[in-house]
Amino acid sequence: MRQSLEEFLVKTRGRGFYEITGQVVNWVAATRIESGLLTLLLRHTSASLLIQENADPEVRRDLERFFSRLVPDGEALFQHTSEGPDDMPAHVRTALTAVSLSLPVVDFRPALGTWQGIYVWEHRHQPHTRHLSAHIIGE
Amino acid sequence: MRQSLEEFLVKTRGRGFYEITGQVVNWVAATRIESGLLTLLLRHTSASLLIQENADPEVRRDLERFFSRLVPDGEALFQHTSEGPDDMPAHVRTALTAVSLSLPVVDFRPALGTWQGIYVWEHRHQPHTRHLSAHIIGE
Amino acid sequence: MRQSLEEFLVKTRGRGFYEITGQVVNWVAATRIESGLLTLLLRHTSASLLIQENADPEVRRDLERFFSRLVPDGEALFQHTSEGPDDMPAHVRTALTAVSLSLPVVDFRPALGTWQGIYVWEHRHQPHTRHLSAHIIGE
Repeated sequence: MRQSLEEFLVKTRGRGFYEITGQVVNWVAATRIESGLLTLLLRHTSASLLIQENADPEVRRDLERFFSRLVPDGEALFQHTSEGPDDMPAHVRTALTAVSLSLPVVDFRPALGTWQGIYVWEHRHQPHTRHLSAHIIGE
Repeated sequence: MRQSLEEFLVKTRGRGFYEITGQVVNWVAATRIESGLLTLLLRHTSASLLIQENADPEVRRDLERFFSRLVPDGEALFQHTSEGPDDMPAHVRTALTAVSLSLPVVDFRPALGTWQGIYVWEHRHQPHTRHLSAHIIGE
Repeated sequence: MRQSLEEFLVKTRGRGFYEITGQVVNWVAATRIESGLLTLLLRHTSASLLIQENADPEVRRDLERFFSRLVPDGEALFQHTSEGPDDMPAHVRTALTAVSLSLPVVDFRPALGTWQGIYVWEHRHQPHTRHLSAHIIGE
């Protein structure tokens, strides 16, 4: 059994989805682990890691529409406002989604379904550099 | 250290919860791994993997009632409507829950609590065959 | 490759956040595993495991405000009311968040970001003893 660790940097340009499937798949292939387990951790509390549909981009726009309405920027309920009207909504959106994902690895690839892509979902409006920690174990 | 991979098919008959605890527990037992880590990945973007109460079925009906109201079929906000009024709600419900789960394995069993069962939560109204990828590592 | 299993008990004193970062970090250090994978499973259906901001406590109070409004105690929609007005909301809040988390381990520590803490989020008003199963694998 072998393992490997990696850290990816994902530069975001404001709220939205940033697909990382390609770089994750390439890294898994480069480790030469045929069967195993891949884990990803986004090391932030105002952005999420999401597996979602990789076909029609309208799906992701609708996700954004829904979450923007569910947790509005500037929501009057929130007291933590010193970091801007989108900061506390970003924390709530992160709590409602996920920052860690685990995927079996089969034939040198994460076992994603045909329509599944892996995305960093940036919840802040300003650009950020997001740190993603990756671990793989297998043989 | 040893590992094993499996793919389960789960046939759904419309929106609702389909318990898979038994088949997962049986597979873990069959691998003869006493201590380790189990990971499950549902390879879809319109159905979820959920750990929830396995006692009173009314709990799951209330979960369904809540999510149906939170993300209504035919919601006017959504633009991605070509695959039916329940398709975009299914994507949102999946984003709000999970498609991957990891569980320690203790004494040849996933370390579920007394009241925890593992469910595929089908969000579409039509029947589907859902693919679940499973990985176990341990000894 | 080595692994280790542990069970933590977390005593809660009503609804709120209970930080467990310290005890998890200490346990990881004590296993002497330098690089690997840590997995946590909260063995309940009415409390969650959450990675959230560990700086301003107002963030957690706002999270609680948001979830209390989204899933109100005593919500008329719910039929499962025999265990109290906060029981079914606790199940929904758990479904909306997570009970399992996986984190790479780097330099004998979980690879948490600077602002990330690990919390048990108790959703019931009464005190509970919550069981957390932990697994680590690596070398």
